[in-house]
Amino acid sequence: MSGNTIGVLFKVTTWGESHGPAVGAVIDGCPPRIDISETDIQAELDRRRPGGLLSASPRREADRVEILSGVFEGKTTGTPISLMIRNADAESAAYEELRNLFRPGHGDITYQAKYGIRDHRGGGRASGRETAGRVAAGAVARKIIGRAGMAVTAFTRELGGIVAGGEFSAETAENPLRCPDPEAGKRMIARLEEARATGDTLGGIVEIRVRGCPPGLGEPVFGKIDGDLAGALMGIGTVKGVEIGAGFAAARMTGSACNDTIGPEGFRTNNAGGILAGITSGAEIVIRVACKPIPSIARPQETIDIWGNPAVVTIKGRHDAAVIPRIIPVCEAMVSIVLADHLLRQRAIAG
Amino acid sequence: MSGNTIGVLFKVTTWGESHGPAVGAVIDGCPPRIDISETDIQAELDRRRPGGLLSASPRREADRVEILSGVFEGKTTGTPISLMIRNADAESAAYEELRNLFRPGHGDITYQAKYGIRDHRGGGRASGRETAGRVAAGAVARKIIGRAGMAVTAFTRELGGIVAGGEFSAETAENPLRCPDPEAGKRMIARLEEARATGDTLGGIVEIRVRGCPPGLGEPVFGKIDGDLAGALMGIGTVKGVEIGAGFAAARMTGSACNDTIGPEGFRTNNAGGILAGITSGAEIVIRVACKPIPSIARPQETIDIWGNPAVVTIKGRHDAAVIPRIIPVCEAMVSIVLADHLLRQRAIAG
Amino acid sequence: MSGNTIGVLFKVTTWGESHGPAVGAVIDGCPPRIDISETDIQAELDRRRPGGLLSASPRREADRVEILSGVFEGKTTGTPISLMIRNADAESAAYEELRNLFRPGHGDITYQAKYGIRDHRGGGRASGRETAGRVAAGAVARKIIGRAGMAVTAFTRELGGIVAGGEFSAETAENPLRCPDPEAGKRMIARLEEARATGDTLGGIVEIRVRGCPPGLGEPVFGKIDGDLAGALMGIGTVKGVEIGAGFAAARMTGSACNDTIGPEGFRTNNAGGILAGITSGAEIVIRVACKPIPSIARPQETIDIWGNPAVVTIKGRHDAAVIPRIIPVCEAMVSIVLADHLLRQRAIAG
Amino acid sequence: MSGNTIGVLFKVTTWGESHGPAVGAVIDGCPPRIDISETDIQAELDRRRPGGLLSASPRREADRVEILSGVFEGKTTGTPISLMIRNADAESAAYEELRNLFRPGHGDITYQAKYGIRDHRGGGRASGRETAGRVAAGAVARKIIGRAGMAVTAFTRELGGIVAGGEFSAETAENPLRCPDPEAGKRMIARLEEARATGDTLGGIVEIRVRGCPPGLGEPVFGKIDGDLAGALMGIGTVKGVEIGAGFAAARMTGSACNDTIGPEGFRTNNAGGILAGITSGAEIVIRVACKPIPSIARPQETIDIWGNPAVVTIKGRHDAAVIPRIIPVCEAMVSIVLADHLLRQRAIAG
Repeated sequence: MSGNTIGVLFKVTTWGESHGPAVGAVIDGCPPRIDISETDIQAELDRRRPGGLLSASPRREADRVEILSGVFEGKTTGTPISLMIRNADAESAAYEELRNLFRPGHGDITYQAKYGIRDHRGGGRASGRETAGRVAAGAVARKIIGRAGMAVTAFTRELGGIVAGGEFSAETAENPLRCPDPEAGKRMIARLEEARATGDTLGGIVEIRVRGCPPGLGEPVFGKIDGDLAGALMGIGTVKGVEIGAGFAAARMTGSACNDTIGPEGFRTNNAGGILAGITSGAEIVIRVACKPIPSIARPQETIDIWGNPAVVTIKGRHDAAVIPRIIPVCEAMVSIVLADHLLRQRAIAG
Repeated sequence: MSGNTIGVLFKVTTWGESHGPAVGAVIDGCPPRIDISETDIQAELDRRRPGGLLSASPRREADRVEILSGVFEGKTTGTPISLMIRNADAESAAYEELRNLFRPGHGDITYQAKYGIRDHRGGGRASGRETAGRVAAGAVARKIIGRAGMAVTAFTRELGGIVAGGEFSAETAENPLRCPDPEAGKRMIARLEEARATGDTLGGIVEIRVRGCPPGLGEPVFGKIDGDLAGALMGIGTVKGVEIGAGFAAARMTGSACNDTIGPEGFRTNNAGGILAGITSGAEIVIRVACKPIPSIARPQETIDIWGNPAVVTIKGRHDAAVIPRIIPVCEAMVSIVLADHLLRQRAIAG
Repeated sequence: MSGNTIGVLFKVTTWGESHGPAVGAVIDGCPPRIDISETDIQAELDRRRPGGLLSASPRREADRVEILSGVFEGKTTGTPISLMIRNADAESAAYEELRNLFRPGHGDITYQAKYGIRDHRGGGRASGRETAGRVAAGAVARKIIGRAGMAVTAFTRELGGIVAGGEFSAETAENPLRCPDPEAGKRMIARLEEARATGDTLGGIVEIRVRGCPPGLGEPVFGKIDGDLAGALMGIGTVKGVEIGAGFAAARMTGSACNDTIGPEGFRTNNAGGILAGITSGAEIVIRVACKPIPSIARPQETIDIWGNPAVVTIKGRHDAAVIPRIIPVCEAMVSIVLADHLLRQRAIAG
Repeated sequence: MSGNTIGVLFKVTTWGESHGPAVGAVIDGCPPRIDISETDIQAELDRRRPGGLLSASPRREADRVEILSGVFEGKTTGTPISLMIRNADAESAAYEELRNLFRPGHGDITYQAKYGIRDHRGGGRASGRETAGRVAAGAVARKIIGRAGMAVTAFTRELGGIVAGGEFSAETAENPLRCPDPEAGKRMIARLEEARATGDTLGGIVEIRVRGCPPGLGEPVFGKIDGDLAGALMGIGTVKGVEIGAGFAAARMTGSACNDTIGPEGFRTNNAGGILAGITSGAEIVIRVACKPIPSIARPQETIDIWGNPAVVTIKGRHDAAVIPRIIPVCEAMVSIVLADHLLRQRAIAG
């Protein structure tokens, strides 16, 4: 991973700022002859779109993806796939008062420190809007790994401190919060409404499962599949923690409890989360990511301006009360991209 | 990260199997004119060596590092630095009975699935011994970041379910467990002895701090410093979870509590753990990693052989009861390597 | 270089097919705070545009570049710069009869062999049109190296077997053939008209000079500046040979004649072409590239179809009679991109 | 290619200085279960060893390769292969008088400019000795491409201005100059003896052929096989020019003469040298590289010291009179490495 590109063979580069002309992604290394259409990609993009019951984002993102290259008569050609999504509704003027202020919890201060310049409008490159390019590219990755039998599914495991029990099911997919536990889901919605009423925001935990992953994906030391997955997920703006299988709970287990014994029928437990020594074992991959609360809160916050003077910033406009559920397709996209890359890498040596 | 190499400018490639002739690392991209000697590197290697009060590893690893290239008259020349550590004491025969068995919790089964062949002796490439190359390379990275004012320190935050309070101090460094809380440290040692007596092993949590990190390290999307750190740390064999700053606790916070407000004197809290939008802020970097218990337990375990038949495996020899404290210098090495790489990358654009 | 991306720090990815919706480039790793505008880039693009005295390409390429990201208020921000050029005039139907035929000298047959699918319209990805993305990115690279005092200039050294003497001057830049030898230039034009009249095409040699290159760019073994320049230039579709300094003539020299002796005032000759052991010496960089004749000739040619049956192909439309002079800005772009990348790499270690 | 590593999937990193403890290479990404032994690699290394009729190098390089990792019971395991060759005979003291002088035609002056430090003994990293690591790695690459039916053969096409006719045959392989034209070979030897007698050196041209290369290797734009081959070959210290197929002669051809027409039996000519649009066509790959005369001549040469003062340097010891034939296995190694990498890359997408 370097800069804005991820992957060795299936390489995704995203570009674009929140309030620039467009955001997008270029996929280099997609195998040829895979059916892909703008409709396929649009379906994924629509999942991260603001709007609906839970969202308060005022921005009407049309988010219409355009395939600019690499697909011919409905099939990939093996050449780079360029995907573009125009930024339809850029209320840049609303951000003018943030030009010289650093919003707490945002990248304003670090971008300024790094580059000495920044597009302050809506977070610029650090905006959640950048993830549209990831999701678009993830839709292509999903096709590749789908052909190999893999299915990536993420859902809400925790929100605002409320833990959801249960496992993902068809019903979960239709739940607006993508929560597998209807009772917990109701409480999560109440908590969200309460947070919004007080001008505050909530964090949560997303759980990601991969079914059907073949054994053998991942590389020995610095390209371990768990390392690459953790790197990709921690690289989502909101994520502050990643754990695999038993995760942090493994730190409190004994070896005899944590080891997954093996029988002819397979692993008898899955504390490893489907990965041993950095390589997939064929068991289900299980990952959880901790999402911090959205830093754009409606309350005044103490901060400084770019000259170091104390200031108070109040973020205007309506923002989501939690990054969940909109972050869920982003998590799925990142996992799909990493798996697609490793699937191709494994094919190279398995000949 | 691809295969066995990490880094864009400061690139470290490790090689070697547990019971092959040697293990080592090649560093490509080290700046010239940095003082480095075998003694400097040896000091770091000695920290991960088995032996002493807490270790029961029977292997007498001499672990003498040899600098084979890239250093001339005590200074780096800018050319690749090749580091080699001979494997002095390879009791390969002892592993013969494991040739066709898969040890639970180890990479035996996944290496076999991936490559169709494996060096079964002592875990081969998946052995903890591979980390000697990382630590040796980390000693060079530490020199680079040290010249920029950075200090990386890791210590034991939790072991066998016992949580250590307190912060790292000079005394912590002399504690055999590298535990900042003497009282907790005593209980940890008792727990370790108990585990060893029952043929079991323990997991724990290592905390890593980076002081003096300049703001501006990290890249926008796929080379975020938190993503790269998480990827590097999750790529240590024992690690099942990584969190930064408030980490998983952030998932239960509100935005108003989680946001670190800013004053002219700096950030007033550090829930971000020194990183905002993937770029260092100048605040202390705070990371915790969850280490699973060592899978080599002294009890018989159910498993299968390479033909899928049920079997029982009993691991001979004496093994450590926990990966802590030996994993601590490995964590420091990985963090140092990632920071050295990003420091050079930042210099490239800051001209 | 992998697939469609070149560079380690200044990374350029091009995308797009000749008759798809657009072509473009993404630049990742451009330093911040560099003045750049669509006008700057357009000026370079206009140099490769068909049309004018020497061109017979029927395609009216508007070639209007659009900056989609990475530039804010006229300055680069350090984030990816996405450049797009719409394909205004895609007469795809004219290519229908080439759908199942392999044009001699073109990549039709190799793309089909590699991918099992291809966009046959106008050569698809293998079209010269792809170089628009390179030239656009090269305009940004030129800004970076220009700030470091470097100037890249290419011109026609030979066309259709006619060798031009002389050196590049201001007059050369205004010559339609960019030929430094007015008398030879006249004969070249006559030869071009003769070729066109007979439905044939001509090859030639482009010479590239870099003035003001600082010493120290390039890396020891696999990132040598001559290796990277040769790789980048041989990767232009038309190029079949690259030589540096004395080049092939050096193979016929003795060491005493070929070695450039050094005095306090500098190198006394420049057989090395400004590069020693893969690193720039501060002397002028001198490169020549051999361009084959354009394979799209107006005469019937024997070939096969995709099923292996013999066929005759006659390429319709009007095509240029030589890739010179349109290839000249492409050569300059590639050299600028390689130098920009190495300049940044050198800054990283020179701190 | 970055620094000292080449390849995307089959990655070779070389390390080592002429008079340091050792030189070597690490191969990362070699497929598993390939038979390889030290004997296989030694056979290639012996081909580049000084000594024999034509060589005057005083250095007795034992050049015994040691496999340190990645091979288990005679087969590759898929993990990194570390190869080391000790520098047996390092007469460093002889180089003391060159510590502060820049030898014309050598990298002394550019390494000093780049790094501000250099190992002056025998050229350090810029020594021809570095190529031992390339040749060792090339022996492994040759195994991989050999299994796919490819054979790489290089030979002397020109030496000291004497052109050899003919094609490579079994007899050529036994000729000390690896010259396919016995009569020309005799004159080459006389020319070499004459050069040596006058304290001078000669350049020449090596021709490389690849038989059995499958169609489809190479990538669209920046990973074209001709670009990668040219980059790898121009990165050999002695090479100043590379041409493919008709090469520079193509610049003087017409399109109707240069295009290789295609029949059901294949290409009727091979001006393309086996590569179209950067992708192999299945025809024989034909490359020629121009080698400059060895810069270490026995005559006094004007130069400067590191402080810029005029000086005269006389290079002691006995050196070869030409880099041919010792460079031939290096050319074969580089071509084999590039082809092995692209073969694996093609397998990844061909699934």
